[in-house]
Formats: sequence, C-alpha cells, structure tokens
Amino acid sequence: MTSHDTAILRANETFYRAFSTGDYATMARLWAEQAPVTCLHPGLPALIGRETVMQSWRQILTQSTQLTMRCDHAHVQLFGESAVVTCYEANGDEPAHLAATNVFVREGDQWRMVHHHAGPLARAISRPPPRAGLN
Amino acid sequence: MTSHDTAILRANETFYRAFSTGDYATMARLWAEQAPVTCLHPGLPALIGRETVMQSWRQILTQSTQLTMRCDHAHVQLFGESAVVTCYEANGDEPAHLAATNVFVREGDQWRMVHHHAGPLARAISRPPPRAGLN
Repeated sequence: MTSHDTAILRANETFYRAFSTGDYATMARLWAEQAPVTCLHPGLPALIGRETVMQSWRQILTQSTQLTMRCDHAHVQLFGESAVVTCYEANGDEPAHLAATNVFVREGDQWRMVHHHAGPLARAISRPPPRAGLN
Repeated sequence: MTSHDTAILRANETFYRAFSTGDYATMARLWAEQAPVTCLHPGLPALIGRETVMQSWRQILTQSTQLTMRCDHAHVQLFGESAVVTCYEANGDEPAHLAATNVFVREGDQWRMVHHHAGPLARAISRPPPRAGLN
C-alpha cells in the first residue's frame, strides 16, 4: 500500500465519520472546491454541482435520525491524481446493505471527494472479523 | 464541451453498444489493460481485477436474453487523465430504471473503462425528448 493509498483511505474514512457524526463542516471541507462534483444518493437522480450536492448533505446531516455509517472492505484504485474507492456501507453493527463508489482527486496536498454513489446490495454482507493486532 | 469530453462520451456509448449487441470483443478492448479495474453490477458484491470483471461481462453478454441498454443524460466530469460519467440506464424504449457511474482513464490515446457501478432508481426516469436537428 502506497502513502497515497493510505491518504485516500483516510479521506474515505473522514467521509463516513462526518456522515456518522452529522459534521457538515468536515463534509464541506472534504468535497472538492475546484474540481466538478456529483452525487448519486441511493435510488435518487444525480445531483450535479457543489451547491446542489452540499445542500443535500446539509439536509442529511441535520436530520433528526442520525445514522452511524460504517465502511467495510474499502478498496483503492489509484490513477495518478485521482482515485476510486469501492466499499460496502452499513448502519452501526448491522451487515452492510449498500455498495458504494467514492471518487477522490488531489487538490493541493489534499484528497478531496468529487463523486459518491451508493446503491442497495441484493444480499447484505457481514461485517469482516477484526484483524489481529489492530484492536 | 472539450474534445476530451466528446471522446469520453464516445467511450461511454461504446460500453452501452457492446452491452446491447453482446459484443464481448469490443467490451474487452474498452476495459483498461494496465490500470486496475473494478465493477459493481446492480445489487452484487464488488468484482476486483480485470480477469474477474471480464469473466462477468462474458457471462452477461453471452446470456440468451439480450438486453438493449440505453444511456440517458450522460454527464462528464473530467479530471485530467481520468473522468467520471454519470448517467441513467434503460432497456429499449422504457424509462430508465438504473443510475450508473462509469469511470475512464487514458491509456495511450484511448479512454478506457476502469470502473462501472449501476444501481436501481427508486422512481424510473423518462426518456429525454429528442433534440432538434439530431434526428
């Protein structure tokens, strides 16, 4: 794993932590400012442009029912200055019920999100066992 | 629209044409050879690596029930040597029932696919009206 992979996985974790804690400020900093952004929330039409995408996150993160989002089996594809992360999303300790594509690009020294797409899994995927030495 | 956008949209159309005509050879040429590839078919776990991804396409493209896949509202995000296309997928003349993320990278002078993710839309999206002068 390269240092870029590590930084991209950290950005991906930042996304799910901001999602789980309702932290709009962190979510807004994570999404790219210069590169174009889009978002496909589960089942919904595409959101295009930073203002539209961030408005959706403001609504999601301030709703009364807070979700604790977990990301399992994150896998990085690195393409120079951009990267795709695929992973499974779960609520709390439940099996994962969504598959996600998260795309990041480098802006300055930061990996920032430019696209998120989450869609349902036909069969939920169990949480992977904790890896020895990481707990 | 830049010449890159046009070439990326053409690669995206190649994907749906190969899908619709069961053209495995074209599909195999479209997917990247050097860059890492992944695929999230609707509802299914992630496929990682060219051999696994292409095996899935061989199965899909040789099945007896041929699908005629249409791609509506394709939208390009260009990030230098990579690009994300979002669009809606439909069968034949039906309203679109899937949202898709297609990621491409440049290999030599070709835009080649490195990731495909399709997931269901909660509400089908009607086919856009034909644009004047294009028919």
